[in-house]
Amino acid sequence: MTSDEAIYDAIRMILPNTRLLRPGEPGIEAYARDESTARPVDADLVAFPRSTDEVSRLLQLCHAQKIPVVPRGGGTGKAGGAIPIPGGLVLSTEALCGTPAIDRRDRLAQVGAGTPLEQVKRHVEAAGLFYPPDPSSATGCTIGGNVATNAAGPACVKYGPTRDYVYGLTAVLADGRVLRSGHRTRKSVSGLDLTALLTGSEGTLAVITDVTLRLLPNPGGAETVWISLPSLETALETVAEITRAGLQPRMLELLDSTSVAALRRFGESRVPGDLSCALVVEFDGSQDSLDEQLRGLIATIPESAQSYVAKSAGERAAWRQLRGITSIVLARVRGRKYSEDIAVPLSRLDEAVAEMRRCAREHGIEIACYGHVGDGNLHVNLLYDDAPHETIALVADEIFEVSLRLGGTLSGEHGIGQLKRHMLHRELGPEMARLQRGIKSLFDPHDILNPGRALAD
Amino acid sequence: MTSDEAIYDAIRMILPNTRLLRPGEPGIEAYARDESTARPVDADLVAFPRSTDEVSRLLQLCHAQKIPVVPRGGGTGKAGGAIPIPGGLVLSTEALCGTPAIDRRDRLAQVGAGTPLEQVKRHVEAAGLFYPPDPSSATGCTIGGNVATNAAGPACVKYGPTRDYVYGLTAVLADGRVLRSGHRTRKSVSGLDLTALLTGSEGTLAVITDVTLRLLPNPGGAETVWISLPSLETALETVAEITRAGLQPRMLELLDSTSVAALRRFGESRVPGDLSCALVVEFDGSQDSLDEQLRGLIATIPESAQSYVAKSAGERAAWRQLRGITSIVLARVRGRKYSEDIAVPLSRLDEAVAEMRRCAREHGIEIACYGHVGDGNLHVNLLYDDAPHETIALVADEIFEVSLRLGGTLSGEHGIGQLKRHMLHRELGPEMARLQRGIKSLFDPHDILNPGRALAD
Repeated sequence: MTSDEAIYDAIRMILPNTRLLRPGEPGIEAYARDESTARPVDADLVAFPRSTDEVSRLLQLCHAQKIPVVPRGGGTGKAGGAIPIPGGLVLSTEALCGTPAIDRRDRLAQVGAGTPLEQVKRHVEAAGLFYPPDPSSATGCTIGGNVATNAAGPACVKYGPTRDYVYGLTAVLADGRVLRSGHRTRKSVSGLDLTALLTGSEGTLAVITDVTLRLLPNPGGAETVWISLPSLETALETVAEITRAGLQPRMLELLDSTSVAALRRFGESRVPGDLSCALVVEFDGSQDSLDEQLRGLIATIPESAQSYVAKSAGERAAWRQLRGITSIVLARVRGRKYSEDIAVPLSRLDEAVAEMRRCAREHGIEIACYGHVGDGNLHVNLLYDDAPHETIALVADEIFEVSLRLGGTLSGEHGIGQLKRHMLHRELGPEMARLQRGIKSLFDPHDILNPGRALAD
Repeated sequence: MTSDEAIYDAIRMILPNTRLLRPGEPGIEAYARDESTARPVDADLVAFPRSTDEVSRLLQLCHAQKIPVVPRGGGTGKAGGAIPIPGGLVLSTEALCGTPAIDRRDRLAQVGAGTPLEQVKRHVEAAGLFYPPDPSSATGCTIGGNVATNAAGPACVKYGPTRDYVYGLTAVLADGRVLRSGHRTRKSVSGLDLTALLTGSEGTLAVITDVTLRLLPNPGGAETVWISLPSLETALETVAEITRAGLQPRMLELLDSTSVAALRRFGESRVPGDLSCALVVEFDGSQDSLDEQLRGLIATIPESAQSYVAKSAGERAAWRQLRGITSIVLARVRGRKYSEDIAVPLSRLDEAVAEMRRCAREHGIEIACYGHVGDGNLHVNLLYDDAPHETIALVADEIFEVSLRLGGTLSGEHGIGQLKRHMLHRELGPEMARLQRGIKSLFDPHDILNPGRALAD
């Protein structure tokens, strides 16, 4: 128990007071929650180590004392994976940060896990290079949290998730041993790929302290098109056309009628067009390539649509922001919002949407779908005022069932955390679940790292 | 022992005679070797299961009897990973094949592990889509072997290795249990990524029987440029310029002077230009994009070079073939050839080449470097007539040392197999090696799957 004075004294031998937060101290309340709907839990102790060595010493102690440790990046998770565990330690990576070391010739960056993603992206851009992953939480999330959850975002549709950009890691195992995995080369096939195994492991196998990232050349300019559409069905047909045409936008986002209406009501910029739904499509490349991609896109847009090309970087930013705040404005439609993150094969999107709507309607719950439709990844939001918790849980589980029945997944990008864990065995099956538990035991024999999260029982 | 009649009888309860090869039967000799320099070993029994269920029953038996099993795809490996083990079973996946099931809307293919890569690529292309990985062994290798070794090839420089295209797997564990990992969606973060862990595990964790692959849209046309250059140094400077310019060729291959001379002497097509070294550069994209990329490339070519743009698909194919047969023609320069596959960060390529040459020269061994220079991945060949085995082993180990010292890896794409295993602990360090052994024990507690290969002791 981190509330024991003897444990606290031992931790103070590792970190000074100034890098520890205890109950009652100003600022600790922020660590009770993340950006999910999971119930907040007051932290008993939050630690801010500055080095891999400090993380190692903290974990040695927690391992010996069997104290649960919740690794935490920016606290922007949507699945409850960073909520404190009573009697445990919240290990914040925020102080494991610094200016990314960017190597232009090798096109890679090495950076402390606690560095905000936005800062990483800014430095990479200043070096004339490009780090594609762009979760909407970019201003608040850390690069280590991105790796721990294999975060994605709009750019995934063209560039893939965080996993595709992780060359190597420094990570501290539960018992304090330090692991260095991966490489600084584009290719390596030496031994099992533990870098890939740790990516997306949600803090259950190790605490990531440092990451080496693959960078791309600067992709050139961008063109953004807002397509206003008369129905969700038309929007999904247009997505299928864009895919069939072989176009590769770096953003292909859907906003359904509830989302568009909420943006019109609560958003700060004007929503282009006056139809009920929207697609936001962005391309990148040289000017010639952009012209060609725009021509290709225009051929896929149905006559019933209204389309607008962003006339300036400011307009592009405003549209991106409209998409970015969709989650926030939807929360204002009704008193409460419960958000899911399924992904289905593209060919099953229309069925998935129809079935989820039917299921919500049956229970009298309003539903809004928006998100990374080009990846089949939809953020499905239940909007309600006073529906009983049981009804919401029931509808959420039915949405999971729909996704799994259509060959999809419980989570496209938000992770399992606490909130989806009860369904995970359904997606994985008994063999996958058994092996994952075995790997967990190997890495963390005392089950101190984010226990009860992310993995199936 | 598969030579025991009782074991053979038990195996015949699973597979008919016609899908088993025993010593003395025609064709079995091909299974004694792969395409590495590892010493051939006669197979005691080769089995050709046709289904996941047959693989499962074979492995149940081998697990119970503690019989070593060597999974084998097309036998084109370069690291000795598919050489038989005395008393063991060679489990060929060749009969686990069939027409790939291609889903255009979801841009994926599902295919039996034993299907030749060439056949996969042909069907994908016929569907108007693109599967990028292109190891030079495409005509002989299987897709399952590609996944098991995380194979790459020239296209990796733009499109990444096989790993980046594996959505999911069916695999049989050592005890016969069947594992289904992964998904049919672009994104999924449900649980630990065992698909990524099995990819590149070289048959040590499970036998892959079926794979689900991500496909891309057809990339359009191609332009290929052969650049004849006066020295290796000039060639490496040009590679650095191409990288600095942010160009993204889908092939960026180096041929050093020994390689070019061997192609001039033994190749069947004419080698363009008359300078000593060469780069072969290929772009893909729409015609506008190709024009733009070519303009960008031309700006990076030094005045001392001669450059040629392929005038037809036939010329492109001839040049690709010259690059493809480099390994074969180098084998004819001297009596013997020993081939390595290091990869170093791009910024260390010049040092790596200089040090490897110096080291070979000190031991009086001729050296040839060619390969995927855009990835920092060089196939380093020792050419000799009668040098003692010890000298070759010593030079090979010194080359590994050079690669590791410069932040590189023992193997860019060929894998560890038998031949590089003695050095693997040097690259991994004790923690990585310990965890990998732990994972091996979890998946294969009796150590029957490719024992003594791919993993560090």
